[in-house]
Amino acid sequence: MSVLRGTALSLLVSGAAAAGHLFPDCANGPLSNNTICDTSASVPDRAKALVAVLTTPEKFQLVGSTSPGVPRLGLPSYEWWQEALHGVASSPGVQFASSGNYSYATSFPQPILMGAAFDDALIEAVATVISTEARAFNNANRSGLDYWTPNINPYRDPRWGRGQETPGEDPFHIKSYVKALISGLQGDDPDYLKVVATCKHFAGYDIENWGGNERYGFDAIINSQELSEYYMQPFKACARDAKVASIMCSYNALNGVPTCANSYILQDVLRDHWNWTDDGFYVVSDCDAIQNVFLPHNYSLTREGAAADSLIAGTDLNCGTYYPLHLPAAYEQGLFDDTVIDQALVRLYSAQVRLGMFDPASSTAYRSLAFADVNTPEAQELALKAAEEGIVLIKNDGTLPLAIPETGNLTIALVGPWANASAAQMQGNYAGIAPFVHNPLTAANSLEGVNVVYGGSPGDPTTDSWPAALWAGLTADVIIYVDGSNSGEEQDRNTIHWTGERQDIMTQIAGLGKPFVLVQMGDQLDDAPYLRHENVSAILWAGFPGQAGGDAIMNIITGATAPAGRLPVTQYPADYVNRVAMTDMSLRPNETTGNPGRTYQWFGEATVPFGHGLHYTEFDISITGNATDDAGWDIGELIAACNEEYKDLCPFQSVAVAVDNTGNVTSDYVALGFLAGAFGPEPYPLKQLVAYQRLFDLAPGSATATVVLNLTLGSLGRHDEAGNLVLYPGAYSLLVDVPTRATWNFTLTGDSVVLEEWPQDTGH
Amino acid sequence: MSVLRGTALSLLVSGAAAAGHLFPDCANGPLSNNTICDTSASVPDRAKALVAVLTTPEKFQLVGSTSPGVPRLGLPSYEWWQEALHGVASSPGVQFASSGNYSYATSFPQPILMGAAFDDALIEAVATVISTEARAFNNANRSGLDYWTPNINPYRDPRWGRGQETPGEDPFHIKSYVKALISGLQGDDPDYLKVVATCKHFAGYDIENWGGNERYGFDAIINSQELSEYYMQPFKACARDAKVASIMCSYNALNGVPTCANSYILQDVLRDHWNWTDDGFYVVSDCDAIQNVFLPHNYSLTREGAAADSLIAGTDLNCGTYYPLHLPAAYEQGLFDDTVIDQALVRLYSAQVRLGMFDPASSTAYRSLAFADVNTPEAQELALKAAEEGIVLIKNDGTLPLAIPETGNLTIALVGPWANASAAQMQGNYAGIAPFVHNPLTAANSLEGVNVVYGGSPGDPTTDSWPAALWAGLTADVIIYVDGSNSGEEQDRNTIHWTGERQDIMTQIAGLGKPFVLVQMGDQLDDAPYLRHENVSAILWAGFPGQAGGDAIMNIITGATAPAGRLPVTQYPADYVNRVAMTDMSLRPNETTGNPGRTYQWFGEATVPFGHGLHYTEFDISITGNATDDAGWDIGELIAACNEEYKDLCPFQSVAVAVDNTGNVTSDYVALGFLAGAFGPEPYPLKQLVAYQRLFDLAPGSATATVVLNLTLGSLGRHDEAGNLVLYPGAYSLLVDVPTRATWNFTLTGDSVVLEEWPQDTGH
Repeated sequence: MSVLRGTALSLLVSGAAAAGHLFPDCANGPLSNNTICDTSASVPDRAKALVAVLTTPEKFQLVGSTSPGVPRLGLPSYEWWQEALHGVASSPGVQFASSGNYSYATSFPQPILMGAAFDDALIEAVATVISTEARAFNNANRSGLDYWTPNINPYRDPRWGRGQETPGEDPFHIKSYVKALISGLQGDDPDYLKVVATCKHFAGYDIENWGGNERYGFDAIINSQELSEYYMQPFKACARDAKVASIMCSYNALNGVPTCANSYILQDVLRDHWNWTDDGFYVVSDCDAIQNVFLPHNYSLTREGAAADSLIAGTDLNCGTYYPLHLPAAYEQGLFDDTVIDQALVRLYSAQVRLGMFDPASSTAYRSLAFADVNTPEAQELALKAAEEGIVLIKNDGTLPLAIPETGNLTIALVGPWANASAAQMQGNYAGIAPFVHNPLTAANSLEGVNVVYGGSPGDPTTDSWPAALWAGLTADVIIYVDGSNSGEEQDRNTIHWTGERQDIMTQIAGLGKPFVLVQMGDQLDDAPYLRHENVSAILWAGFPGQAGGDAIMNIITGATAPAGRLPVTQYPADYVNRVAMTDMSLRPNETTGNPGRTYQWFGEATVPFGHGLHYTEFDISITGNATDDAGWDIGELIAACNEEYKDLCPFQSVAVAVDNTGNVTSDYVALGFLAGAFGPEPYPLKQLVAYQRLFDLAPGSATATVVLNLTLGSLGRHDEAGNLVLYPGAYSLLVDVPTRATWNFTLTGDSVVLEEWPQDTGH
Repeated sequence: MSVLRGTALSLLVSGAAAAGHLFPDCANGPLSNNTICDTSASVPDRAKALVAVLTTPEKFQLVGSTSPGVPRLGLPSYEWWQEALHGVASSPGVQFASSGNYSYATSFPQPILMGAAFDDALIEAVATVISTEARAFNNANRSGLDYWTPNINPYRDPRWGRGQETPGEDPFHIKSYVKALISGLQGDDPDYLKVVATCKHFAGYDIENWGGNERYGFDAIINSQELSEYYMQPFKACARDAKVASIMCSYNALNGVPTCANSYILQDVLRDHWNWTDDGFYVVSDCDAIQNVFLPHNYSLTREGAAADSLIAGTDLNCGTYYPLHLPAAYEQGLFDDTVIDQALVRLYSAQVRLGMFDPASSTAYRSLAFADVNTPEAQELALKAAEEGIVLIKNDGTLPLAIPETGNLTIALVGPWANASAAQMQGNYAGIAPFVHNPLTAANSLEGVNVVYGGSPGDPTTDSWPAALWAGLTADVIIYVDGSNSGEEQDRNTIHWTGERQDIMTQIAGLGKPFVLVQMGDQLDDAPYLRHENVSAILWAGFPGQAGGDAIMNIITGATAPAGRLPVTQYPADYVNRVAMTDMSLRPNETTGNPGRTYQWFGEATVPFGHGLHYTEFDISITGNATDDAGWDIGELIAACNEEYKDLCPFQSVAVAVDNTGNVTSDYVALGFLAGAFGPEPYPLKQLVAYQRLFDLAPGSATATVVLNLTLGSLGRHDEAGNLVLYPGAYSLLVDVPTRATWNFTLTGDSVVLEEWPQDTGH
């Protein structure tokens, strides 16, 4: 062990325990005369001035996630790792108090349920609350300002253990969702980032541990076409359009190269093609992913090589200790020079400058946010609203909404493994500490005019739980059965069916002859046995609904709120898992491999399709305005009229859809617009989402509402085999709703035009 | 819901909470004049007399595992479910006190480590302690007397989540082990069973949840040859030879029929072929396995059918509530009559009679055992000895045994995720509450003359754990690294390799240039990266070693005890999991499917082979006595001289093996005898274990010891395609030790003879 490494080691051991979030003292500290503290200087000049006074050994200590700072310079220790997937979350940099102020933060639903709301304004509002609470925690020295959220890998396979962390399977949907989210997290102050958001995991990451394939060593083989059209789309929206300040490279390799050492995606695609080069934009590795570049990837043949290769490829910060441990020796070996480490440090400290960490507290109102801004009544209401908007009514024979008689003599049996769900079940992955968690049982108990009999969790018939559940059902007027499926990090699912045991007890209880409502929580399971079962009256899907989730479920069940959520994923038939290996990244059906196709775009045999969602009322839907059938456009003229820097963003048409509530219940309505048709390279997708918009509180008998679906040139485009986005001549159909309830046909003519040229991986 | 079922349900709900273990009052209770209480009557007459006074609804309540008893008859409630895999264990029928007396029981190593001892006398001694402690718990009304142990499915695939519960992969070894175990559990009193032992899971059960296949619905396809020669062998030893009082049918189906509804295995094989018909022998279902006969197996098309089919096939007791819930309606539907339920009840109450539950306390000394008999000093010593005997020395460059200088100036760094292992890790599946658990760290801290630096658990390099571990290694003279792999029930492993992260930190620490000892705990992982790594000085495998496990490990490391354990399983190369599906039950290699073969009998590419184990000394091994090379026997003469009821049990030859300790350390030695050769149906196995014997405390320079390997006709036999055990003419070789260190060649001539005709599955 070299002297340099020994020094690094002792620094690490002594410094690591002292992580904190206090800002440097720019007024009186050792840095007060350094340009980093000069608010009149440019962001990069300020960062460069700090880097210029660092010693080489110090530099290597500052690119690990638990930074010891530089005591001699008054540069404090800093923990870069904060999480906030659906609220400020437990993570190394977030210190919840044991009680009282700062002992909790608002816990919103998991993204998979918020995705089901198809309401971008809701997402921005939620993200704004989260960043406000994050700033309050930071001002109390209880968190840093770098948040490693959102998770935007598209939910490609129903087995993925972290699919719940994403808004769903559709790239257009995720793009739209994440732009709203980043805006809310990073704020709208041109001078200061509210927090740094981090789009992860870049790219091709969506396997935890399946069939002997662990995420740390998996090599995702993805062709250019599907890489560009699917896997990269959310990151393009994040980096190019939403200007997220941080991107996290992932554990997996992409076409042979671990992503954190992959200059093709980190430089050619991210920084060069998407122009993701603003001051302070930095790449952070997933935790230990630099280590994995050595083992198990065996991409770099030494530890020093793995560290140097990643730094050179453009990974600026290492979640973990691999950079601090091994960059010193890599430097000694001449694997890189100071310009490389300095570039990373300038990016990192530019981000800190943009967060205002070297500025006076008076410089931004963000510094004044306090615990009074955490879990406000408005935030609590928003958490409830987010859950209500997402809940999807999958089946209903008229049992819902439940009529509670004025006599108040209704007895409800609440039964099932998730009826009394734990806080962990209600919140899902990456949760914080919620101020309260109202599960279905606690929410039912607070209903007026209802007697609740809790029938327990009939999970295991070896105990007396089955007889007790049956007995509860026998004694009630209505049975609400709450069950679910839970995946998790490092754990993909093997199966997506309701087990025989659960089907048995559920259908036994349903067979008692009472109205039977299944509340399905967590991840999707194949509901086919219940969809066709006459004794199952209704099915709601409620995901992981957060602190107010039980209230939201009961509001929907009683009709206090009408459901309007739409499934943001395909509910696959149970045997899907036997038809395609999780490791097969292809989306298109393939007769040779037997892959039946992935997502609603390529797989047409869903148990419940993407976009499905019933209402308590009836809607008439029609396309109105300029969208006359058989309209046509010349591609050349469309391009000539396009003045955007990025041609895919140019508007095409705004299509007005008339929505008339012809039923009896006030309700939201989500307009979903898909494109289908014969254009571009074969095979053609079944359809592709190109627009959505949620309408609110449409009352029966009121005037017809109009929703506008905005199409862009990009939304008409398709990707060729090289990954280029191309506008093709052909016959197009815009399909509204699932199943389709209105259609607009139009044509494009002329020569095809490349809207976006995809950079090729030249293996440099 | 019928009246009968409603009654059953209300009985279940009211009765289930009242489980207890008090015996009926045969002196003054309502049954005192019933023949069940007449100790002079025969066992079946006594049981029949009780059954005769039961009403039909009462009968159905008594065949669920939590029996409500019959209050009007003074028949107490009884919990049939006790566990004691490696000590009296936490389970529904075992009530540990919260402190003081009966708050713990002796915790022995998991069977996989005790199997590595290859010492049947040890196993019988351990089982005797367990049954003594079980009786003490029962006498204190803290447990029943029916124990659902042992798990004897052979460990066919390294991924199996419950392989740790078994003695290993070899059927001869398991047979020998389990006969000793049953003898110790059930005792040697001809009039009373000490406890009822239960051999499980009958049969073909060894998948938890792999690749979408759950144990509850898996259909194991096994041909007659391998069913007879491998999967059934342990059960044959249990049922036919050891006369275990209970057998548990399993979750899976076997060749299309769920085992609990499978009259071929429960009647034709178990009761008819193996003559398993003694009074009180009963079959119990695995927990909820009757339910699974309906769903997910879909073997019986109704719930009532599943209950009736299982009862008729010969499953007498249902772990669960399916019998009590659904037998009433099945009876109403005429699916079975009273003779069937009465047969089950007579078996169950005959077992209770044989346990002495209807006899006066004075009738057997078992009733006098008390807490003074729990975790005695002898039991504690035995728990330590069992762990020491099992530990296997896999690699050693001379570093072990560790020399502790008289100056006492040795500093040991103890590092790794299992160094400070939890009680759950030390004990493994189906543990009880141990009186204490000495893990490696606590044991090292009690060594004299040694300074211990605990380097923590460098599991996750995102924290400061890696630097801390490296720092601890830097400061020590010797590094002991303790890590392992943990499987579990309902959870098969996907991989059997050390992750890249663990290989990295381990080889970094090993690279510090100090002697480096790896203590590998838990399940096997592919040690290839360490076997060939020059910086890894020694490797010990220590399984799940129980309450004294840390002491045993330190005794081996310091040389207080010399290692002599042998691997009871193959240590497979990491890529084995990619070469054969877990669902492929075939043992023989198959070019079509790519199956490379299973167990040492058929797979020759082990990283570390079955039977491997190094010593601190050297042994000279030779075959002596009558076993002259090129001896020959005529099969007809061998058969003519065989007078056993079961011909496979007839002795063949006793082969004397001379063992000479030519080294410097007193040590045990395990003699392993395998047969190989060209005889019987092709393909031929590489070899098959046919005998083993452990020698104790062989001192260097003492007289040569002799160990006798007893061969039977059965051990020479092979199984034909129909599953018959046949003695074939051919050339035989007895191979001693791994790798082979002595060989005896002999021949059999004449016509082949069937030793045991295997009953065929006629699908009736």
